[in-house]
This record gives sequence, structure tokens and C-alpha cells, in this order.
Amino acid sequence: MSTGVWLIGARGSVAVTSMVGATALRAGLAEPLGCVTELPALASPALPGWGSLVFGGHDISDITLEKKVENLVAAGVLPARPAAAVADQLDDLQRELRPVPVAANQLEQARLIAQDIDDFRRRRGLQRVVVVNVSSTEPLFNGDFPTLDDLERAMTASALPSSSVYAYAAFSAGCPFVDFTPSTGARLPALMEMAAAAGLPYAGHDGKTGETLVKSVLAPMFAMRNLRVRTWAGTNLLGGGDGANLADPAARAAKSGSKQRVLRETLGYQPQGSSHIEYVDDIGDFKTAWDLITFSGFLGTQMRMEFSWHGCDSALAAPLILDLARLTAAAHAAGRTGALTDLAFFFKDPIGEVPHALAEQWANLAGFVRGLAND
Amino acid sequence: MSTGVWLIGARGSVAVTSMVGATALRAGLAEPLGCVTELPALASPALPGWGSLVFGGHDISDITLEKKVENLVAAGVLPARPAAAVADQLDDLQRELRPVPVAANQLEQARLIAQDIDDFRRRRGLQRVVVVNVSSTEPLFNGDFPTLDDLERAMTASALPSSSVYAYAAFSAGCPFVDFTPSTGARLPALMEMAAAAGLPYAGHDGKTGETLVKSVLAPMFAMRNLRVRTWAGTNLLGGGDGANLADPAARAAKSGSKQRVLRETLGYQPQGSSHIEYVDDIGDFKTAWDLITFSGFLGTQMRMEFSWHGCDSALAAPLILDLARLTAAAHAAGRTGALTDLAFFFKDPIGEVPHALAEQWANLAGFVRGLAND
Amino acid sequence: MSTGVWLIGARGSVAVTSMVGATALRAGLAEPLGCVTELPALASPALPGWGSLVFGGHDISDITLEKKVENLVAAGVLPARPAAAVADQLDDLQRELRPVPVAANQLEQARLIAQDIDDFRRRRGLQRVVVVNVSSTEPLFNGDFPTLDDLERAMTASALPSSSVYAYAAFSAGCPFVDFTPSTGARLPALMEMAAAAGLPYAGHDGKTGETLVKSVLAPMFAMRNLRVRTWAGTNLLGGGDGANLADPAARAAKSGSKQRVLRETLGYQPQGSSHIEYVDDIGDFKTAWDLITFSGFLGTQMRMEFSWHGCDSALAAPLILDLARLTAAAHAAGRTGALTDLAFFFKDPIGEVPHALAEQWANLAGFVRGLAND
Amino acid sequence: MSTGVWLIGARGSVAVTSMVGATALRAGLAEPLGCVTELPALASPALPGWGSLVFGGHDISDITLEKKVENLVAAGVLPARPAAAVADQLDDLQRELRPVPVAANQLEQARLIAQDIDDFRRRRGLQRVVVVNVSSTEPLFNGDFPTLDDLERAMTASALPSSSVYAYAAFSAGCPFVDFTPSTGARLPALMEMAAAAGLPYAGHDGKTGETLVKSVLAPMFAMRNLRVRTWAGTNLLGGGDGANLADPAARAAKSGSKQRVLRETLGYQPQGSSHIEYVDDIGDFKTAWDLITFSGFLGTQMRMEFSWHGCDSALAAPLILDLARLTAAAHAAGRTGALTDLAFFFKDPIGEVPHALAEQWANLAGFVRGLAND
Ligand SMILES: NC(=O)c1ccc[n+]([C@@H]2O[C@H](COP(=O)([O-])OP(=O)(O)OC[C@H]3O[C@@H](n4cnc5c(N)ncnc54)[C@H](O)[C@@H]3O)[C@@H](O)[C@H]2O)c1
Ligand SMILES: NC(=O)c1ccc[n+]([C@@H]2O[C@H](COP(=O)([O-])OP(=O)(O)OC[C@H]3O[C@@H](n4cnc5c(N)ncnc54)[C@H](O)[C@@H]3O)[C@@H](O)[C@H]2O)c1
Ligand SMILES: NC(=O)c1ccc[n+]([C@@H]2O[C@H](COP(=O)([O-])OP(=O)(O)OC[C@H]3O[C@@H](n4cnc5c(N)ncnc54)[C@H](O)[C@@H]3O)[C@@H](O)[C@H]2O)c1
Ligand SMILES: NC(=O)c1ccc[n+]([C@@H]2O[C@H](COP(=O)([O-])OP(=O)(O)OC[C@H]3O[C@@H](n4cnc5c(N)ncnc54)[C@H](O)[C@@H]3O)[C@@H](O)[C@H]2O)c1
Ligand code: NA
Ligand code: NA
Repeated sequence: MSTGVWLIGARGSVAVTSMVGATALRAGLAEPLGCVTELPALASPALPGWGSLVFGGHDISDITLEKKVENLVAAGVLPARPAAAVADQLDDLQRELRPVPVAANQLEQARLIAQDIDDFRRRRGLQRVVVVNVSSTEPLFNGDFPTLDDLERAMTASALPSSSVYAYAAFSAGCPFVDFTPSTGARLPALMEMAAAAGLPYAGHDGKTGETLVKSVLAPMFAMRNLRVRTWAGTNLLGGGDGANLADPAARAAKSGSKQRVLRETLGYQPQGSSHIEYVDDIGDFKTAWDLITFSGFLGTQMRMEFSWHGCDSALAAPLILDLARLTAAAHAAGRTGALTDLAFFFKDPIGEVPHALAEQWANLAGFVRGLAND
Repeated sequence: MSTGVWLIGARGSVAVTSMVGATALRAGLAEPLGCVTELPALASPALPGWGSLVFGGHDISDITLEKKVENLVAAGVLPARPAAAVADQLDDLQRELRPVPVAANQLEQARLIAQDIDDFRRRRGLQRVVVVNVSSTEPLFNGDFPTLDDLERAMTASALPSSSVYAYAAFSAGCPFVDFTPSTGARLPALMEMAAAAGLPYAGHDGKTGETLVKSVLAPMFAMRNLRVRTWAGTNLLGGGDGANLADPAARAAKSGSKQRVLRETLGYQPQGSSHIEYVDDIGDFKTAWDLITFSGFLGTQMRMEFSWHGCDSALAAPLILDLARLTAAAHAAGRTGALTDLAFFFKDPIGEVPHALAEQWANLAGFVRGLAND
Repeated sequence: MSTGVWLIGARGSVAVTSMVGATALRAGLAEPLGCVTELPALASPALPGWGSLVFGGHDISDITLEKKVENLVAAGVLPARPAAAVADQLDDLQRELRPVPVAANQLEQARLIAQDIDDFRRRRGLQRVVVVNVSSTEPLFNGDFPTLDDLERAMTASALPSSSVYAYAAFSAGCPFVDFTPSTGARLPALMEMAAAAGLPYAGHDGKTGETLVKSVLAPMFAMRNLRVRTWAGTNLLGGGDGANLADPAARAAKSGSKQRVLRETLGYQPQGSSHIEYVDDIGDFKTAWDLITFSGFLGTQMRMEFSWHGCDSALAAPLILDLARLTAAAHAAGRTGALTDLAFFFKDPIGEVPHALAEQWANLAGFVRGLAND
Repeated sequence: MSTGVWLIGARGSVAVTSMVGATALRAGLAEPLGCVTELPALASPALPGWGSLVFGGHDISDITLEKKVENLVAAGVLPARPAAAVADQLDDLQRELRPVPVAANQLEQARLIAQDIDDFRRRRGLQRVVVVNVSSTEPLFNGDFPTLDDLERAMTASALPSSSVYAYAAFSAGCPFVDFTPSTGARLPALMEMAAAAGLPYAGHDGKTGETLVKSVLAPMFAMRNLRVRTWAGTNLLGGGDGANLADPAARAAKSGSKQRVLRETLGYQPQGSSHIEYVDDIGDFKTAWDLITFSGFLGTQMRMEFSWHGCDSALAAPLILDLARLTAAAHAAGRTGALTDLAFFFKDPIGEVPHALAEQWANLAGFVRGLAND
């Protein structure tokens, strides 16, 4: 039986690269590079296969998949060949995409969202649907809603960030929820309770695909060698839809926050310097990050390291979306509930008290997959 | 009781930085930055303390420690303050340095070397002496000596690389041997047998202090994310004594070899590109390495990363010499014999079938230290 | 006869490096590296010699020169040897430094400033005094004072930026004025008129010592090759006094503005991207700048270049202060008045309609020096 | 009337990019980016227009233009759109390409080459033909042939490098010769005499498209600021046909030599460090060069700069081929003979005692073009 993947932000770069990529992989048109669940240490019969993933989703935009794919090819995100090969399947994919329902308030809207997801499950005969948020990053949100009552009251006043409305809808529909963005999503006490009550797992936050990924191996290196990092300052230049959205300082604040934690957590102190984000339209999806690290060694000798990372954000994110869908579906099947802290490997700002060093996160992830297989 | 550290190449940059540094640490003049055995996870009562380390060694050069320290301060390797503070102890240190004994052949020379070490042990009332090779890198050597007889015959013909003569002498004197250089050292079957017969541990090869250290965390990152590294090409610009020596293509070959293994071992294949070493006098001990990594991700999208590393080689190496002396002494005390493969963390080209990813090497090292404590 | 150099911000890093450096040069303790008026194409008997420069100045800080020099040595800005060699001349230098006069309003204060300068000239028997502003960068100022009356009215209300008060005082005292900072200084119509009326030359603004210097040769390279620059985005990490001051967004705005002009002026259009400044205390005076340039070539092919610049700001600025003092003094002697547009070579944001390509600025400067010699 | 451009190495990357590009430009499918003769300062009615250039050439390879274009598109050198648009004109272009004539010796071969060129001129009714060498770099050649007799004797013994045979043939056919490679070409006394006797101009050597271009603006910057460059060390990673050829150390030697001159000539001394070339197949035509520059400033303070250049070699070279053809044709029309030293702007290793700073080369080039217009 099949597994549904319901994407919030389904016409965005990450979502479309995921869907087109999964289609190309299924057709044997490309190797599953970037998909970690294909590595021997993580491959497991407990995970649903590529062939069994079925996509759908919501988006506020009505750009056609054809147009979006054309843009992604022009930007060098999608290679021309696999894109051309799946062109005739775009209509099928598109048929499962829904506009965001309009309603009097968020509580009502959540009901309609949940219904869209439920219809999808039934219509396609799916065993389960994993909801994955890959929509635009929201501004930082500071509200707090201790109880479900508080939360629903806020929803009648339409006072919630959208990402949390989607999380509420996912849980109402009995679906696990993965947050690939730094938005609030399921990160409200009442929503976590709701997931627990419904026996549902969730994972997040903020996919780790570039500078922070590198930090998560370099920072432990300095720590393991007892070298004191004095400054770690970085600049991220990016364009694309996500970049345009991050041109808004409020959205950027949410993102920069996520990027800082790994240093403090792996070094045990916060070095000087910050992580700067700048929107440059021309750069598109090929983000360039540059980091400077100054450090002190034996007897205080001063040293330094610089790196630049030139990665295609959507190409790095898309295979992780497929991994997360497979892993979360398997976790649901195995009856796991609550925060999937062993998926910290995938996130810049992982839920829970978890290691931030990539190698430890990897060990935890491998243990998690072995655990699923044993169930 | 005290532990001796006998340095081959005792007037070189690494050796002198180690000795001066240990003296400064003992006097509380500096924090033990760069010393990994000071980290909570590795600190152990099984390891001899700073206070108990006593230094001596051989060198073919007769530069005074005073002059050498002056050079290291001018080059920015040793900060002026701790160097000045230990100035009055340089004579004491110097008293334990010996010229390389002259003899009719290497067998005879080895006997004299062993005797120097033995005199040192007695005179200073040391519990044990760890011999550490930090002398100039030798050209690649291809000879093989299956039996101890073969080896000693070769020594009468003076056909061995010096580093192996020192290893032979160390084992004759009942001392563990650490090879911080890429030279042959104890890496001959007959010498390994000799160590085993004498119940002695040894460790090596080639201290991991710069580009290879970074590779040992970045290569696993690409592997864990299933990203295919296509090219990994690097350039190392370095001056100083070691650099001058590496200007010789034969010595360089030994070094470049060490630098390649980590990629093949952690990625499972050898990417294109090589590791280039160039001698630039002006650069001195502050090596600059630059690496370019190109890699393919989802659907074949091409990406790249660059880093430059500007590290002070001797300042990075010296604290590791102290760590290795402490660890090897403790291993000897605990009765460990043969190759200390759990010390792979320290080496570019570690002995044995061991992991090359830094995090795994760290875990092994931590286990090793815990094991010592339990003995 | 001698030439006075009156420094506004005389206890700051640039000022003190200039004074100590000139003293060391005079004593033959160092080569005049970084001094462009020592190059064959610019050397001229029309310029006053090192030996004839006499320093004085104002500062709001009362840090002793001894302490400041100690800090600059510790930071690696001043090498220890020349600093030690001039230690006994610091008191003499210090005797000519004055606190900023306190007065009821800026008009009165300007009178006292001018008097300090005039006293200096008389006491030291100087032929002329060049006033050079190297004090902290001020926030952007938008006021405008068409006539001298307007200006003096504003001064009675103390509504002017300090730098303009100093320019007014310099002109009142019959002294040329050089603005090495991005502050307003002489850049007010009434002040320019005042200089013209008094037959005085002035030069500025904002010394060109790092990223902008590099831009002034790279941007023309792209232009001369008809390559279209799409993005030029940069990050400047700096600490030190100037850095601390630039941590203030208002001061930073003044500085970032200066850094942008060169691209528009030499390329003929403004590429995407901005120049970001970040204060990092640990970096000190050794600024690190990183720039990314993406460009299109034949048939639209996309290419890129990155550079990082690791320069010591005060060591780059100080020799230019000496050059500017010599050139401006000679211009004054030769009867030049008004904006010295041929000194654009030295500035990020040069006065007047001048070329921004370094090579053209150089040609103009060389012509200017030849012109002085012919007078 | 039309101008012929006869390419030696006509099926190589540079040649094919030039021909396809010129065709696309003619059709208005792209802007003439990278073509310097389109800049206002250099545009001149004395230069033949795009529309009047007619291509032909020799190559030892028989790869079809169709296949070569396909490769260049796949490698990202030629954008897909203009390549597709000119697809139907490839056959026409191909018709003018000739295999390298086989003959008993080089003298005989040169006669046949000249005849091919002459046939081309007649058949296409061309006013003149400029021969441009863009074939593979040859190993360094040290022979010397004082007189034409010596040279022709050597040719009967087939002892000349091919590039010189082509130069001989070009001059025999009454055609100007441009050498875009570091090969010997016209750089033999007897050939220069032959050109002079025939009243023909020639230009070279070795197109300046990457690291050396950047050096030709950065080195003058250091010189103009009186900063002493201590080390300038570089690494060039490149693949493609040219890269494969440069994997041969002998060919590489020719190239590395060209790259060094600019530093000595613009700085007045040779800094430490060398320019390293490494073949990396995966890198293809998108060369990555990295350079480290260390320099001393005021009072000896040490500073550094790094850059990386990621340029598409053929896309940088092709428009220059068109420029050189236009300029050399116009020089021929204007009766210029001998070495066109004012074209130094285009070359790494320009003929004659010429400036190596790009800005001065530009000024000379602009003067040259103005001179042509006045004739
Ligand atoms: N690509 C990466 O490497 C990466 C890494 C970490 C996090 N992320 C996050 O993933 C998200 C998607 O990135 P992207 O590059 O695909 O961005 P994108 O701008 O291309 O796509 C976002 C999509 O979300 C849609 N959207 C916006 N608000 C919505 C709403 N309320 N409901 C439904 N749809 C809505 C937009 O219309 C758009 O189609 C961003 O939040 C980004 O920060 C991406
Ligand atoms: N510094 C690092 O980061 C690092 C890392 C890995 C390996 N190493 C290795 O450590 C060694 C020492 O490096 P260094 O920078 O101190 O070099 P160095 O040149 O400063 O010192 C080497 C010393 O060895 C002495 N020597 C040479 N041959 C000898 C012999 N036969 N017997 C005794 N002494 C002899 C020399 O006289 C010199 O004093 C080198 O082999 C280097 O490759 C260093
Ligand atoms: N160093 C460079 O490369 C460079 C380049 C361009 C411009 N500048 C400019 O030069 C100036 C000096 O730089 P720095 O690094 O020496 O800074 P700094 O902070 O070390 O020195 C500035 C000095 O100015 C003094 N000051 C502040 N306000 C004053 C006032 N109203 N009157 C008199 N003195 C006052 C301060 O007390 C301080 O001593 C800055 O404006 C900087 O932006 C420097
Ligand atoms: N692309 C640049 O930026 C650049 C810059 C400077 C110099 N160059 C030089 O331009 C030349 C061409 O570069 P490319 O990238 O096009 O190389 P390429 O390998 O793609 O093309 C060279 C062509 O020359 C042909 N050839 C080889 N020997 C020949 C001979 N004896 N007669 C006729 N044809 C012959 C080859 O078959 C091939 O088709 C090289 O010498 C290179 O060093 C290129
Ligand atoms: Na870089
Ligand atoms: Na760099």
C-alpha cells in the first residue's frame, strides 16, 4: 500500500524539486544522490519505497507545475534531461494540488485543510499521509497557548501563524507532521499535546542543507582538538523564492536564530560573530555562504580558517524531504509518537535536548532506523 | 615518579615548541589549549601529569635552544610572553639533548642511541621513557625486511632509513615509540615483531594537524549526506624547516601519500584531484592550505566548496606530542603492546584497519582512555 | 623650515601609527613601505621631507601615547622593534596633543581649536600646518548651510557635526584640511566657500585602504573586458576603535555609502549586492573583507570570483596620512586652492567628478606632483 | 567586402565557441559581452563588422561541429538557446574546415596549408584572411633559426614545432598571424623577418583570460601603493581539451612561464611562489584558479589576500578571438607590419618591451584603435 506526502508550499522550489525528483528516481532516470535513506547504514525494509510515495499539497500560489519546472531548469536546479523525461507526468501531479481554503477564521480553515488531506488519502487509497511544511518562512512569532482551548480560541481570532494552522490540521486529520522550515509549526505546547493525544509523531525544525551542515562537522572538530574558536562570522547570499522572503528582516530573524545554536551547543560557548543573510536576486537558488573562523591554539597562537559553500538549496533539500517522509511514515507505522528527536540529523534547530554534532546525530539516526526494523 | 619524553629531532620546531610549551603549562603561564587529553572526555588519572614529564632527545643540528626559541618567537609560533618566562629553564632542557652518535654502521649506532636513552632514564630516575620521532621527513623507502636477522644485516650495511634505526634503538632500550612523521619508523615487519616480543606499544604515523584534519570531518559529511565528491584538489604552501625539507620531491611524495588515504577510506572511492605541496620560505610555519571540492547532489546537480586553512603547524603539533607521550606512557604502564590503533585520531596515516572519520576516531580514543582507567 | 601635521583624533590608531611610523622612518628604523610619495613616479623635491614633519593634534580621549603604543604592539599593528626604538620620543610627541576645548557653543569652540593650532605653529616655528581628520566616523548628517552666515548661526546652536567644526577651525586658522574619514568635514557649501575665500586647499573623503582599493582595480578590469558584473556583495569584519564605532548603524551607513560609489562609477551601472560591515571585537585592526562577484561573459555564460583581504587597517592608513600631509602642504605652498581632486587616488569617496579607476587616479596624481615641481 | 578568419585548431573549444558565438551575435541572439571592440572607447569604423567575418580552419581532429557543440552545451560553455538557434548553420561552417595536409616534410606541408588558405580567400571572395592559432599548446621549444635559409632547411628535416609551420604558411599566403597560445608560432627570428619582408603584422602570445588577467590589475595595485609582495603563489585546476594537454609537464612548462612575467614586470622584482597547473578532468572548461598573496606594509606589518577565480575558459577566450581578428585585419588594411605590440592587452606573454599593467595596455590599445581610424 502507498504512503502520501502532503506538501505545504507545494508549488515552491523545494516541493517541486522533490516531486519531480521522486518521479525521475522511480523511472530510474537518476541515482538517488543526496537521499540518505539509500545509504547502506540507513536503508531498511521498514521504510516505504520510492515507488509507493504519492504527492499532493497546498499552496497559495497558482503557478503551474510546468512553468515552475521551466524556471527550475533555467536556474540550473533541475537538470534538463530528467525534467523533460517527467514532463508528461506533471499534470497528474498537479491534479493533487489544492489552493489554500478560504474560511471565516483559522479554526474553520484548519477543518477544510484537514478535509483536503483526508480526501487525498481516501481518493488515492493511502495507508497514511505525512504532512511536510515547505512553505515560505514566517516572521518570528512569540505567542504561547498553554492549552488546546487557548489555541482554538486564538484560531477563532485568526491569531496563529499559518504553519501552526497546518500543524493543527495535520494532527486533526491523524497525520504526522514534519517542519522543514524555521516557522512555528508544531512548536506550541497545545499542539505537542494534541499530537501526543492523537498518538502522532512530528519532526523539525528547519532543514540543514548548507552553512549549518558544515558547521555541524567543523565546530566539533575544533572542540575535539581543544582549539578555542574566537570568531565565527558568516554571510549567506541567496536569491530564489526563499531568498526573496528572507529579504524581510522579520523572516530573516527566524532563520539566523536557527543558524546560531550549533556553535554554542557543540563548543560549549558562543564565539563572537553572527550569521548574516542577504538577498541577491541574481544568485537564485545557488546560495553562496562564506564563513570566517578565527581560533587560538597552543600558548594562544592565533589561527584562522575560511570556507565558501556554493550549494543549490533546493537540490540539497529535496532528497531530505523524501527521506523525512519515508522515516516519519515508518515511525508512524511503528507507533512512535511525539517529537522524533532522532531525526536531528536533518535539522538546523532540532527539537529536544539532542546532540548538534553531525556524527552523533548520524549515530542516533542509524540507531533509530535499526529500531524501526526490529519492531 | 616521572615519565621521560625522548624526542628525535629535539632541536626542531615541533620539539622545541613542545618542550617550551610544557614548561609554560607547568608554570601556569598558559592554558592547555590544543591538548586533547585535557578535555573532560579524555582526562584520566591513568595519564601522567604535566608536572611529571621530563624531556631529552637527539638532533643532528647543534642550534642552541636559545637561538631556536628566538626564531620561533620572531616567526610568531611562540608568543613572546611565555617564551620569555621560561628563558631561564632552557639551559636545563638543553643539558638533556644529545648529538646523534657516530658509529661504524647503523647497528652499532642504534646501540649508542639506546644507551643515550637508557642513561637519561637512570640519571633522571624515570619510570619509563617514550621515544617520539619529530625529525625531518625522509624520502619514501621501499625496502622490506621480513626477519630481525634480515634487518640487522641491513643495519650492518647501513641500508636503513634513520627513523627505523631510532625505532630499533627505542625497542632495544625497552621504550615505546611514537612516529609523528610520515617516515618509515617502526613500519617494518621485523620492527613490529621486535616490539611485540619486547611487550612494547607503538603509534603513528604522521601527525594530523591541518588540511587532513579538516578532510577527516568534511569527507564524512559528504558521505553521510550521500553527496558524490567528484574533485578534491588541494594546495599546501609552507615554509619553515619542515617546508624546506619537503621542497625535496622525494620527501614530498611520502607526505602527499599520507594525505590521500582519508578520502578513499571515508568516501569509499577516490575523487579526482591531488594534494599539492609547495615550499614558500616566506610563509614559514604558518601553513596555508586551500582545497576545492566539487560534488554532485540530487539529480546530478553540481555544487562546490572551498576552504582555506591558515594554521601554525608547530603550535598545532606540539600539544599533540604531549598528548601522545602521556597516552603512550599510560598504555605502556597498562601493559598494552603492539600498534596502538586507537590513537588514529592523531594521525594522517594511522596504522591498522581503522576508521578515518574524526568522530569515530574520537570515540575510539575515548574508549581507549576509559579502558586504561579501568585497568 | 618645517611643516606641521595637526591630527584630529590624535590618540587614535591611525594617528598614533602615523606619528610613531614617521619617527621610526626618520630614524632610519624602517623602509617607507606603504608611502606612495616615495615611489620614483611621485617623489618630488616639492614635497616636504620626513625630517621636516612636526605632529600635534586634538583628541577627546586622554589615553597616554605609551599605553596606546602598547596596545598597538599587542594587536600586531606596530612591530615591537620600531615601537621600542621610539619609546623615548613619545613624551615629546605627547606634549603637542591637546584636549578638545570646551566652550559655550561650536562657534566659540572653533575659535579655541584654531587658537590651539595657531599656538602650535608659532611655538614650533612652522611654515604651515595641515589639519588631518582621523577621528571617529560620525553618523550621516543631512543638514545644508548655503551661506557662511547660516553656518555660523547653526554653530551658535551647536547643530554641526564635529568634523565640520574642525574644518571651520582649520580654515579660520589659515590651514589646509584633509578628511580621511567619511564624516561631513568640509563637505558643506559654506565651508567650501570659506576655503576658496581664504585661498586654502582641502582633500577627502574616507581613506581607501582595503576592499574599496581592490574594487578600484577589479571593477575596471571587468569593464575593460566588457564582462557584465551581476552581483558584487561584500562583508567586512573588523574590530578596533573604528570597528566599535561602526557597530553603530548610523556611522556604518556613512561608511557603506562610500564603499558603493566605485562600482557604479567604473562599471556604469550598479550591480546587485551590498557591502556589509560587522563589528567583531576579536578581529581588531586586522580587518577581513570577503567579496563575491558574479559576472556574465560571452553568450551569457555565468562566472564568478571571490576574494578575501586580510589587511591591517592602521598600517595601511598611516603612510597615506604622511603622503597626504606632504602633498597637501606642497599644494598649499604652490598656491592651489579648493578641492584637490587629483588626490582621488587616496579616497573611497573622492570629491568632485573624478575617475574611480585606480590607474587613472594614479595618472592624475603623478601629473599633479609633476605640476607642483614645475611651479 | 568580407574578412576571413582562419583558425588553427578549428574544431577545438575556443575555435568552435568563437564561430558559434559570431553566428549568434550576427543573428542578434546575444549581446556581444566579452568583446572589447564593442566598448565605446574601442569601437571604430576601421574594424570589420561581425557581419563580414567568414570562418575556416585546420584541425587534426575530425570531430563534427555538431558533436563538439553538443559537448560544449553539456559542459555549460555554450548556453543551450543560442547553440540550438545556430544548429542549421553548422554544416556551412564545417564546409570550410580542412584536415591538416599530409606531406613529405614541413616545407611541403606549409605550401599545402598556404594553398588551403588561399583557396578559402578566393572561393569566398575575401579581402584578407587573418590566421589565428588556437590549437593545443606545444611543449617548450628551444631551437633558433637566424636566417630564412636555416629555417627552411629545418623544415625539410621537419624539425619545427607545428605552430611555426602554420606561421610560415600564413606569411607565405600573405596573411597576418595571431598566436593565442603559448607555443612558438611566429616567435623565431627568421619568421619575424619574413613577416617584415612581406609587410605583414602579427600578434601574440597566449591569450590572457583568467588568473593572469587578475594579476595584471592586482600587481599594479600593490606597486602603486608601495606595498611589498612577498609571496604570490597560485594553483590552476582545469580540465577540458586544453587541460588534458597541459597534464603533459612539457606543455605545462610553456604555460607556467607565461604566467610569471606579469609579476616581475609590474612589481620590478619576483616574489616567492609559483603558478601551479593541475589537470582535473571533472572541472572541464570551468577553470578554478586560487592565488595567495602575502605582502608587507608600513613598518613591515604582514598582510595577505586570497582570490579564487571560476571562469569558463572558452567563453572568456572566444570573444577575444573575434576582437583580435577584427583588430589585426584593420591593422593589415592600414598597412601596419611587424609585431602589434599595442595588442598586449590580450596576452599573457606579449611580444616586445610593453607594459604589463592592464590599464596601461588598455590605454595603448585605445590609442592604437584611434590611430587606425585616423589612417
Ligand atoms: N532549500 C533549502 O535548502 C531549505 C533549507 C531549510 C529550510 N528551507 C525552507 O523551506 C521553505 C521552502 O523553501 P523554497 O526555496 O521552496 O521556497 P519557495 O519560496 O520557492 O516556496 C515556498 C512556497 O510556499 C508557498 N506558500 C507561502 N505561504 C503559504 C501558505 N500560507 N500556505 C501554503 N503555501 C504557502 C509559496 O507560494 C511558495 O510556492 C522555506 O521556508 C525555507 O526557509 C529550505
Ligand atoms: N608540525 C606539524 O604540524 C607536523 C604534522 C605532521 C608531521 N610533522 C612532522 O614532524 C617533523 C618535524 O617537523 P618540524 O616542523 O619540527 O621540522 P624541523 O625541520 O623544524 O625539525 C626537524 C629536526 O629534525 C632534525 N633531524 C633531521 N634529521 C635528523 C636525524 N637523522 N636525527 C636526529 N635529528 C634529525 C633536524 O636537525 C631538525 O632540528 C617533520 O617530519 C614533519 O613532517 C609535523
Ligand atoms: N584605518 C583605515 O584603514 C581607515 C580607512 C578609512 C577611514 N578611516 C577612518 O579614520 C578614522 C580613524 O580610525 P582609527 O582606526 O584610528 O579609529 P580610532 O577609534 O582608533 O581613533 C579615533 C580617535 O578619534 C577620537 N575622537 C573621537 N571623536 C573625537 C572628536 N570629536 N574630536 C577629537 N577626537 C575625537 C577618539 O577618541 C579616538 O582616539 C575613522 O573615522 C575611520 O573610519 C580609517
Ligand atoms: N581558453 C582560454 O582561456 C585560453 C587562454 C589562453 C590560451 N589558450 C590556448 O588556446 C588553445 C586552444 O584551447 P582550447 O581550450 O580550444 O583547446 P582544445 O583542446 O579544445 O582545442 C585545440 C584544438 O587544436 C587541435 N590541434 C592540435 N594540434 C593541432 C595541429 N597540429 N594542427 C591543427 N590542429 C591541432 C586539436 O585537435 C583541438 O581540436 C590552447 O593552446 C590554449 O592553451 C586558451
Ligand atoms: Na575562497
Ligand atoms: Na578564501
